[in-house]
Amino acid sequence: MGQITRRRPVMKLVLGEGAVRKTDTLAVEEPLEIRVASSPLAVTMRTPGHDRELAAGFLVSEGIIARGEDIRTAIHCGGPGTGGTENTFNIMDVALAPHVPPPAPEAARNFYTTSSCGLCGKASIEAVHTVSRHEVATDPVTVDAGLLTTFPDRLRERQAAFEKSGGLHAAALFDAASGELLVVREDVGRHNAVDKVVGWATLNHRLPLRGTVLQVSGRASFELVQKAVMAGIPVLAAVSAPSSLAVELAESTGLTLVGFLRGRSMNVYAASHRILSGDVQGLQAAPEEAPVA
Amino acid sequence: MGQITRRRPVMKLVLGEGAVRKTDTLAVEEPLEIRVASSPLAVTMRTPGHDRELAAGFLVSEGIIARGEDIRTAIHCGGPGTGGTENTFNIMDVALAPHVPPPAPEAARNFYTTSSCGLCGKASIEAVHTVSRHEVATDPVTVDAGLLTTFPDRLRERQAAFEKSGGLHAAALFDAASGELLVVREDVGRHNAVDKVVGWATLNHRLPLRGTVLQVSGRASFELVQKAVMAGIPVLAAVSAPSSLAVELAESTGLTLVGFLRGRSMNVYAASHRILSGDVQGLQAAPEEAPVA
Repeated sequence: MGQITRRRPVMKLVLGEGAVRKTDTLAVEEPLEIRVASSPLAVTMRTPGHDRELAAGFLVSEGIIARGEDIRTAIHCGGPGTGGTENTFNIMDVALAPHVPPPAPEAARNFYTTSSCGLCGKASIEAVHTVSRHEVATDPVTVDAGLLTTFPDRLRERQAAFEKSGGLHAAALFDAASGELLVVREDVGRHNAVDKVVGWATLNHRLPLRGTVLQVSGRASFELVQKAVMAGIPVLAAVSAPSSLAVELAESTGLTLVGFLRGRSMNVYAASHRILSGDVQGLQAAPEEAPVA
Repeated sequence: MGQITRRRPVMKLVLGEGAVRKTDTLAVEEPLEIRVASSPLAVTMRTPGHDRELAAGFLVSEGIIARGEDIRTAIHCGGPGTGGTENTFNIMDVALAPHVPPPAPEAARNFYTTSSCGLCGKASIEAVHTVSRHEVATDPVTVDAGLLTTFPDRLRERQAAFEKSGGLHAAALFDAASGELLVVREDVGRHNAVDKVVGWATLNHRLPLRGTVLQVSGRASFELVQKAVMAGIPVLAAVSAPSSLAVELAESTGLTLVGFLRGRSMNVYAASHRILSGDVQGLQAAPEEAPVA
């Protein structure tokens, strides 16, 4: 429980130099079953540790809860076949507070299919609007572009396990005004790393996460934008590329989406009014450049 | 349908240089609902194109089918709310052949929970053994290490869309003996790229994929090893790190797992007897190196 890397023997081969046996450090991956009121809801392959946060964040992302007070308890429990004597720490059972309706059967799978207009990107975006209980578009927060460019390195400095294993995604939450790093979480699954960050905030009664920036180590998919929106995070910054639907969901919800945040450079794909730079009068007034290939 | 990149306006900001508006190319992401006999089985966020392959490969990965002849038809269909007049090409309905039992309700979600020993990595590995219908351990194929080191570059050369968008994972299938590249597929989801490759082979009646190498552009998770095993692929090579459970599943099934395949170097995590190198008498005889941090 909580072990996030594991040492394993490996054969390292370099052409022309031969092979040696050595020991390598791997990111640990184990299944976690998330239950609500003892009823299985989802299984995710995750790096053990911060499982209560992962479960809480997952429930926020799926629209089942919206705040920390919506959870009564979240505990590891043994499987039904274990007779209660063995606990693999791979099942997390969440009891919702009395005021929270239980998830509909198949809640997770139906998230994208609640719209009657057929399954498409637009329907997926509408589903987020329908389920979301926090407003992102009205968050008046702004972020200094220079401060933002420091976030990827500060995230990387805290990625202790990645340095050793090369196999972990990371997500961090920063205060947009002060730049304070609030929390960092790592996981073999990028969606899990974000759920753990959101779950940390949920269990600490910080939702909605107004005035914050979610920094992720990789790409920005629809799912990551969805998770930010569901937690009320107004700015998502990714080191790599966003997808088309991530940009469309960000535009539609008013979330500021930054991609390719590297060195002194960034691309702002949606809600660029929140990014302030001393270099320019305002990004809205930026000149056109000839389209690039 | 089939469009894998999309051009979007973006604000590019460089500290000290100011901001310009330009056009960026994004990887397209759209939901695909996979149905079996008109019954919804799963929704995946994928890059459109090769949807029949994606559905077929997904069904192989989940153990619902094992060969191309298990599929009668696979067609795009409109959603139930569309009156049949609109087709978003985001629903794929698969009709199984008469000899194939329909998937159990909740087939996909229960994949990891079929074992009675509680939920853990070991149970997940047992589930793959239970469901798999192709034997990987007995495949006598070997791969020349020098040939293997050429695969990442050859995969990258074919990643046309990644070059433009930076947002697509890729998977390729190579013949282990000749090095012939059989197929390349790209997707915003790494699991989808592999499902498309496996689905291509399924629809072309090439399962089990004995004598082949699956090359992936990123990391090797449990899920990717599972997909290789379910398709009968004996060698999985990844450019980046594997997870602990990926290595354990590879060892348990006899799949050769190569990670950090970069330049002239590679790490072999399981079933190293299939990797042949002129440099050494045989990898089994490789000397010990002092453990590294």
